[in-house]
Amino acid sequence: MKLIRFSFQENNSWGVLEGDSVFSVTGSVYGNFEKGEKVCSLSEVKLLAPAEPKIMVCVGVNFKNATNADGDTVAVERSCPKCFFKPASTLSDPFSGVEYPVNAKDPHLEVELCVVIKKKAKNLTIDEVSDYVLGYTCGNELGAMDYIREDNNVTRGRGFDTSGPLGPHLETELDTSNLALTSRVNGEVVQEGNTDMMIFNPLEVVQHVTSFITLQPGDVVWTGTPKGRSPVKIGDKMEVEVEGIGILENKVLPY
Amino acid sequence: MKLIRFSFQENNSWGVLEGDSVFSVTGSVYGNFEKGEKVCSLSEVKLLAPAEPKIMVCVGVNFKNATNADGDTVAVERSCPKCFFKPASTLSDPFSGVEYPVNAKDPHLEVELCVVIKKKAKNLTIDEVSDYVLGYTCGNELGAMDYIREDNNVTRGRGFDTSGPLGPHLETELDTSNLALTSRVNGEVVQEGNTDMMIFNPLEVVQHVTSFITLQPGDVVWTGTPKGRSPVKIGDKMEVEVEGIGILENKVLPY
Repeated sequence: MKLIRFSFQENNSWGVLEGDSVFSVTGSVYGNFEKGEKVCSLSEVKLLAPAEPKIMVCVGVNFKNATNADGDTVAVERSCPKCFFKPASTLSDPFSGVEYPVNAKDPHLEVELCVVIKKKAKNLTIDEVSDYVLGYTCGNELGAMDYIREDNNVTRGRGFDTSGPLGPHLETELDTSNLALTSRVNGEVVQEGNTDMMIFNPLEVVQHVTSFITLQPGDVVWTGTPKGRSPVKIGDKMEVEVEGIGILENKVLPY
Repeated sequence: MKLIRFSFQENNSWGVLEGDSVFSVTGSVYGNFEKGEKVCSLSEVKLLAPAEPKIMVCVGVNFKNATNADGDTVAVERSCPKCFFKPASTLSDPFSGVEYPVNAKDPHLEVELCVVIKKKAKNLTIDEVSDYVLGYTCGNELGAMDYIREDNNVTRGRGFDTSGPLGPHLETELDTSNLALTSRVNGEVVQEGNTDMMIFNPLEVVQHVTSFITLQPGDVVWTGTPKGRSPVKIGDKMEVEVEGIGILENKVLPY
């Protein structure tokens, strides 16, 4: 099932997308729910990021061919995923404009597969995780790489306002083991990878996160990006695509 | 003025504390407000953390004698504060029990001066910052130091549930330039410092944070700890004290 969050006639709602038709959700997406009545066509709504996070948790260097802020490939052996936080203020809607900080000199984009949480989750076992997943979507993990190099951490460089576009919709059923990941800038492919190169799979990442924080319904876990992040500049059209989900499009705004 | 957040007769409210008397707040603490009618005595309320954050932003290594996770003194020259995030889920009330993660082997406490934000703040100049401060309080920056060493970052080691006790109240007027900072475990002093050793003062830290994220009313900025964090164990009574504010007490719970 494809779930969207959307704005229509000044109301924000969850909906079910079938073809170009938007249906209401009966019940709560965080509990039991069903497809309701048809509301309108997709072209009549403004798409919103399909999540309502209090916090977003990301994982760094989770691909066997991941690169660091200097562009070097970094082979890593780790006993568990290495995480960082993105505040909810980083969340951005599909087709929205994003703004890198005024003095950021090296803005990049990255494609990621993201997991949206269905219910309160703490200390899960790996077998429990899938029951706590509402769905999967595309994330564009914007980075101010000069900040990351200067700070030697990602707080400022990946925590700035609007740095987390998410969407365009959730897939509630998805085999994430072998999905192509693609980024395009102004239509040109700039990053290609596949989830089969992940070191920790999405369920393993979520499980680890719940070992130290309580995830809430609507929270988001980002699962890392493959080699090949790409620089962007003001005015660029950015697209990140996860096979089996779709394309998330955003634009780099002037400051 | 001393501001508290408290629970009384199943309602959570902001109040003004004078001696042992709790008064209501007329208006909003995030806008214009005055002291209202007397509500009750301090002994009749449950104190809550005096903040309502969507996100908390901390600064690492902000004292000239700060130590790293290995306990070494780390002299640092930086052009700006080095920040990290604590999710709102880390917030803990005065006198509450805190829980380190089950398998954390090296739990520590740290005293910090914390700033609570009064109104939406982005890209502030240094002269504007004080107008955006609601008040100052004590924070106990709990750390699972083995996690920090293993991950080479603080996400898990300072981001776990309950790792951010805050209180007991806000001081709305405070000269933060020369204040003693003290931690005690079971009544014994284990950490002593002074804000005069800060590299970036609290207003400079807040200003920097607003250069990359929009702070919201009730958000919290932590300003770092001096040398001498101390290990703790299950059952310990922890106290952190900031001169001019008061003492924040918490207990380490069994898992």
